[in-house]
Amino acid sequence: MKVGIFGSGTVGQTIGSKVAQLGHQVMLGTRDPAKLQEWLGQQSGQAQVGSPAATAAHGEILFNATHGEGSLPALALAGESNLNGKLLLDISNPLDFSHGMPPSLFVSNPDSLGEQIQRAYPKVKVVKTLNTVTASIMVNPRQVADGDHHIFMCGNDAEAKAQTKQLLTDWFGWRHVLDLGDIKTARAAEMYLPLWLQLYGANGTALFNVKVVR
Amino acid sequence: MKVGIFGSGTVGQTIGSKVAQLGHQVMLGTRDPAKLQEWLGQQSGQAQVGSPAATAAHGEILFNATHGEGSLPALALAGESNLNGKLLLDISNPLDFSHGMPPSLFVSNPDSLGEQIQRAYPKVKVVKTLNTVTASIMVNPRQVADGDHHIFMCGNDAEAKAQTKQLLTDWFGWRHVLDLGDIKTARAAEMYLPLWLQLYGANGTALFNVKVVR
Repeated sequence: MKVGIFGSGTVGQTIGSKVAQLGHQVMLGTRDPAKLQEWLGQQSGQAQVGSPAATAAHGEILFNATHGEGSLPALALAGESNLNGKLLLDISNPLDFSHGMPPSLFVSNPDSLGEQIQRAYPKVKVVKTLNTVTASIMVNPRQVADGDHHIFMCGNDAEAKAQTKQLLTDWFGWRHVLDLGDIKTARAAEMYLPLWLQLYGANGTALFNVKVVR
Repeated sequence: MKVGIFGSGTVGQTIGSKVAQLGHQVMLGTRDPAKLQEWLGQQSGQAQVGSPAATAAHGEILFNATHGEGSLPALALAGESNLNGKLLLDISNPLDFSHGMPPSLFVSNPDSLGEQIQRAYPKVKVVKTLNTVTASIMVNPRQVADGDHHIFMCGNDAEAKAQTKQLLTDWFGWRHVLDLGDIKTARAAEMYLPLWLQLYGANGTALFNVKVVR
């Protein structure tokens, strides 16, 4: 499959490496391709680096792995016509570091970055997912508690969520994918981040997740 | 022990019944004592109903089990001199139902109701806890997954948190009490509520909690 990933940071590189290992044709989209030459040299699979627009045109499936503040600008560079009709897995978190640590959220209650993206691109099938775990758990959930914990997804399009669930399961090994509802529930997934940040501090490691127990 | 509980709703009644069963002297504080006559008739232990001020004066340990919007007004009626120096377990959530369902939060990112209460009453030892589970789990966590899940606490006073942890363990049976940090971390515990509300919908029951897995 052709996969386009926006974002040159740890999340984009981690997803990109995993998807390339699986044999898919990956393009990482960034305004600064020079930053990704080292990453590119480490890939054995079919990996490329391109502009946001080239990445959007390349991908049958797209990932938004930019920093929260970079999400809407990156999608603007990608171009609506390159995005429309496609599944966009939105992993971003609206973290605001301008007031010191821990970061607050630059959009939240009662809105979210996932909703802002869906409103800006009504013809894109936005599914919020994977934003509640650290990058290495996104692509390898079984390293923690044998994968017996939950990842959430939020989106308006049932088919896009079915495809997301299959992708999370088949590509990354997720055992428990929990559908929270439409894209408005992205605010729930994003507002969990302050708790994630405190749990990170309390645990002393980012290698954790939550399991919903009944 | 003498325990004062602000709030006449399900949370206050559930905590009150449990603490009375344990043999403590409980007073539930409300502006509308008539609403609690039925509850009072069901108690076998030492239970009373009183005004917020009488409840605050009575309690060596206090619980804030009011609705979020009622918290600061109830504490104002309780009176600073009756509250000062005491441990106040703050269970409230700043739920705002004015915009329909699901509720949003009337204070959040980067603030919280727990912080507002601590700022208003700097000599009270506020510990935010129990706000992330439904009432019956608060006092009986082992009904879900044999208690193998987490409750959080947030507060500035180390001794107050040690007392809180002991109380949650000894009175209610909590196995995993996780200290998130000072009272500023109450925003993390409160901003989890939108996710809790969606998990409630997805699970079809309020009898769930999250376990932090590593």
